[in-house]
This record gives sequence, structure tokens and C-alpha cells, in this order.
Amino acid sequence: MAMQLISPDAERRFIEAAFTHEGLPAADAATIAGLMTEADLQGSDGHGIIRLPQYIRRIRAGGINKHPDIRIVRERAAMAVVDGDNGMGHLVASAGVDIAIRKAREAGVAWVSTRYSNHAGPASLYAARPLAEDMLCLYFAVGNANHMPPWGGQDMLLSTNPIAAAILTGEEPPVILDMATTVAAYGKVKAKAKAGEQMPPGWMIDRAGRPLLDPNRAGEGFLLPIGGHKGYGLALVIGLLAGTLGGAAMGRDVVDFNADHVSVTNTGQALLVIDPSAFGDVGVFKASVDRIVRDIRESERLPGTDRIWLPGEQSHERRLRNRKSGIPMPDALIAELDVLARELSIPSLREAVSA
Amino acid sequence: MAMQLISPDAERRFIEAAFTHEGLPAADAATIAGLMTEADLQGSDGHGIIRLPQYIRRIRAGGINKHPDIRIVRERAAMAVVDGDNGMGHLVASAGVDIAIRKAREAGVAWVSTRYSNHAGPASLYAARPLAEDMLCLYFAVGNANHMPPWGGQDMLLSTNPIAAAILTGEEPPVILDMATTVAAYGKVKAKAKAGEQMPPGWMIDRAGRPLLDPNRAGEGFLLPIGGHKGYGLALVIGLLAGTLGGAAMGRDVVDFNADHVSVTNTGQALLVIDPSAFGDVGVFKASVDRIVRDIRESERLPGTDRIWLPGEQSHERRLRNRKSGIPMPDALIAELDVLARELSIPSLREAVSA
Repeated sequence: MAMQLISPDAERRFIEAAFTHEGLPAADAATIAGLMTEADLQGSDGHGIIRLPQYIRRIRAGGINKHPDIRIVRERAAMAVVDGDNGMGHLVASAGVDIAIRKAREAGVAWVSTRYSNHAGPASLYAARPLAEDMLCLYFAVGNANHMPPWGGQDMLLSTNPIAAAILTGEEPPVILDMATTVAAYGKVKAKAKAGEQMPPGWMIDRAGRPLLDPNRAGEGFLLPIGGHKGYGLALVIGLLAGTLGGAAMGRDVVDFNADHVSVTNTGQALLVIDPSAFGDVGVFKASVDRIVRDIRESERLPGTDRIWLPGEQSHERRLRNRKSGIPMPDALIAELDVLARELSIPSLREAVSA
Repeated sequence: MAMQLISPDAERRFIEAAFTHEGLPAADAATIAGLMTEADLQGSDGHGIIRLPQYIRRIRAGGINKHPDIRIVRERAAMAVVDGDNGMGHLVASAGVDIAIRKAREAGVAWVSTRYSNHAGPASLYAARPLAEDMLCLYFAVGNANHMPPWGGQDMLLSTNPIAAAILTGEEPPVILDMATTVAAYGKVKAKAKAGEQMPPGWMIDRAGRPLLDPNRAGEGFLLPIGGHKGYGLALVIGLLAGTLGGAAMGRDVVDFNADHVSVTNTGQALLVIDPSAFGDVGVFKASVDRIVRDIRESERLPGTDRIWLPGEQSHERRLRNRKSGIPMPDALIAELDVLARELSIPSLREAVSA
């Protein structure tokens, strides 16, 4: 697959231009463009610019409120419910985490549930935000399409409901976990199809319960949860906490945003922010986490393992590399974005590159 | 394996007598006995009376403080750090969840971290406690022995760090998840050894990375995390939140309480309690969860699946059955408890049964 390196600035400008052209306020377009570019920088490329055509399609179809009134509808000292008014998920989740940070500073811990939010890109972007405030975060979300049945079933009542966590460090890169509760996220299945490769057994099964290996037949089967019944339980609990608790969609109510560009998704996210200074000295905490990180990195490896990675460490290295040398993007994706640019009459990504 | 049915009352009286004999205050002995019996009632039999000889051994060796001063050492509106003063974990975790419930009633959400706690039995016991107050709970703990290396490694720096969650329902049994982040908990490995059975592939590997199937060789290998690197990440994050954040042991500092009966374990647990009435109408929430539970239970099954279970449903049914007909206990365990009874000069479980 031929690739080009795109400068993060060009990507950000291109995305911003697309959303501005569609009538989003300039500040909102800039926020979303920044987060989508951040996703590509850290290698979460299933959640970066690749989503732009789909987002624009939804906006054009009227499935997104371009001028949402994102507001707190319920609150107590350590919690809030934020109604996203069907705005872009990036804006709603950003507002949610900022409110949680503010409340955690007082109460020590704070939980924010969003409702009427939308797809917001990688969970890790929001989980990582409190790190700059010397805080930790747990993040749960209801995925935007149901790809998983309950354990032993074949009705797809559950999504890949992700959990993310960001843990503060001192000198080490932060520990950032961001995982779907399925063995493979659906984006990875699509990537296998694009690459013309088979899936390994354990990713999907078909309606007879047999391993499904051909990614082009993904529609005939479903994703498998991690740890069998355990991952099913996790996906369910995350869905109830991120969706049902805050009044957002869960189970049968989840709208498949790949197939339906109009219906309000009522996506829910939940953000728990923790201020470690409430628990003790933050310097001591950071040093303890650093020590554990180093113990793990320097621990004895299995034969054939070159390096033991910490959660988030590969994304961290990719971010540093891509910031310097640009974001690798397949030619096919760039061509697709060219079509979008012509549709919107905005300068293409290539023009932005050569500019 | 020959089994006898033991009445829950007999079990509780027996455990209470053992702890009272060892000098624990009567009220504390009763609390611990109630929780251990509850564990056996719901079928968490690796965490019930089977642990009594080990607990007594630790108390006799001076590894437990029989008169702990369990107290809040740090707090804000939505959090507290509870120092368990090396008391029995059941007492410390119970105190922790009660404080979290009280604070959540005001703040909407509250997090309690324990330090200087000990092994407390099944996570689900504590996670389920807020249900009676119409609240939800998430529970994280650092396991009491390291059985898992980081992904790709062979130094056992991580435990099976469990996550538990209890979600309120209306008419349905509550959704209660309680899972180790390893494919199999270590107790299941011991059970396979006792039953003279092989382990399935995927539970453990040896130091060369090959599947380990003989449970009697468990000491030569390590447990595998659910979802490979994902379960490793989860175990790490849970350990940092349940241990490091509250100033409890994590990583290299974790004491193997199976091998060492004297060292202070400094076990950490974290309890997050959520009051759904802060988020909306509790009746509506319960009805929504009920509906999702029924959708799942009644959904289409894979060929060969008799029933789709919800997390906690099997324990719920076992609890109802065991309350009525008694707790099934292997003869070998009863014989072991007879030895303990003679050592402590207390009436045996059999005497309690026939009494």
C-alpha cells in the first residue's frame, strides 16, 4: 500500500476547512480538527481523518446539530449529566472532561455522563486530557454500532464498548490504556479486508458458532469478546454505565452510524476524573508509577520478545515520530479526501501539503 | 468427590467461633463469618470457608491486627482514603464501601481507596452492597499474590487484579460482574489440580511460552491475561488505581499471602459508588436496565446454547438454592476444618451441622 507523509498542520487545516465549509462555528471546527489530527498522530488511524467523509455525510444529512447547546442538565458536587444536544461527539466529550476536571479539583473525584453525544474518536484523547492538570481519568463509552451478541447468543445487542484509562507518571510517558472489549475492534476487521488478509481465529465467529476468517464476510458474523463471557460482561457493564445511567442509548436503541446518517444516535460517554493530590503527595504518586513502569519495562522477557511495552507507549513513540516526519497516509485515503475536497470546493489535502 | 450439604447457619457459627477463639472482637468475627458464608452461598467457594485455615494461620503468625483502628486518613467531598491498620480485609472493605455510600448520597459519586487492608474474599460482596441503597458500584482490587507477568514477559509483577461491578435492576436480579483480569483465576487452577484434571490451553503458559496444561506444574508457569495485551493493560491500570493511588502495595511490593503469613500485605481496594438518583429518576433507570436484561436473556441463541446468562445470574440462582438446601462442601474440606476445630478446641462443623 503506497503511503505519503502528510504534515499534521496540513491535516488540521484541511479538516477545519471542511467543517467550516459545512457551517460549523470556526472554534468548533478547530477543536474537532485538532482532535482528529491528534488521533492520526498517535496512530489511532481508524478514528482520524479516515472518518471525515462519514462525519460530513452525517452533517449534510441533518444527523448532527451544527450549533448545539451543550449544557449541564443535572449536577451534584461530584457529578454532572451533560446533554450534548446532538452536537459533534468531539465537542461534547471535550466539554464533559473539562467539567469533570473542574469538579474533581474540589471534590477529589468527579463523574460526568454525556447524553445526546456522538462518535468522538479515540477514547484515549479524552482520558489523557486530565494528565495536563496532574489528574487521572477513566473513560467508558457506548460504541456507535452493535457488532457483538451476548455470550452464547447471536443477536447483536452490544457494541465494542471501550474502556480507557490515563495514569499520571513523572519522567515516564503516561500509562494510557484504550481498548475495545472485543478481541478486535471493528476497524481492524475493515483494515484486514482492505489489506486483502485473513483474520486470525478468535476475532469473529459466524452464525453457526464457527470461526470466521474472511473479513469480507464480516457481515455474516460477529466480533468475539475478550476472555469469552468476561468481555461480554465488561461490554454490558460499560454500556450500562456509559449509556443507560446518563440517559443515553444502549442495547437495541444503539443506532448504527455507519448505515444510518440521519437518526439521532444519543451516544453516551462517561468520564471519571481523579485528583491524586486528594489521596496523597502527587510527586510520590508519580514516582511510584514511574518505578512500576520501569520494573515492567526492564523485566525478564519471554523467548522471542524484543521489548515489553507499557499501555500507550507505542502511541507515544508514534506521536513523537509523526510530529517530526508527518503522518503516513495511504494513497487511497488521500484520493478519497480529494473527492471530498472537490465536493466541498476546498483546497485538497495535497494542495495543503505542497503549500 | 463426595459432598455434604452444610447449613449456612452452621457455617457462620463455625467461622465466628474460630475468629472469636483467636481473639477477634465478637462483632468483627460475626461480620467476617457473615461475608465468608455469603461467598459460599453464592458459589464463590474459592473465597469462602476454604480460606479459614489460611486466615487463622496468618492471625496466629501475627500477620493480622486483631484490633485494628480502621479510619479515614484523607478525604474530600467525593473521596476518602481508609487506612485498614492491617485488619482483616473483610472489615476494611466493608468500612470502605459504607463510607463511599454515605459520601455518594451527598456528592452523587464517591471513591474510597483502602490501604493496609487484606484479602477480603469475593469482590462482588462489596460491589453488591450499595444495591440495597439503590446505588451502583465499581470495585477494583490488587490481588494477594502475583501470578501474571506483563505481556511478553516472565517476571510475575502483576496479580489477577479483579474488577467487579453491581448494577441496580427493578424486577430482575441485579447485574453483578466479578472477574479476574486473567483467563482463569488461580483458584480455578487449584481446583483442576484437586479434581485431577488438565487445564484447557489458554489458561497458563510456561517459561518458554508454551501452553501449560498440567495444574500440578502451575508453579513453573504463569496465568494469561484475557485478550492478551488488553488484559495485561487492564490488570496494570486496576493495580495502579486500587493500589498505588491509595498508597497500597502494587507490583514488586505485593506480598504472596499464600507463602508468607507474617509480612503486612498492605492490600489496596478501590470502591466507586454511584447514586443514580443524581442522574435521573431511579425508577426509570431500573426499568431501562430490566429491559436490557430481558432483551439479552430472550435474544437468539447460538446452536448448542441452552440459555443466555446475565453476569451474576448464576450466583443469584445458586444463592437461592443453597439458602434452602445448604451449601455443598467436599468431604476433604470438612475433614480439614475438623482438624482446625480440634486445634482451636471449638465444636466441629459436623457438630454444628447435627446441632
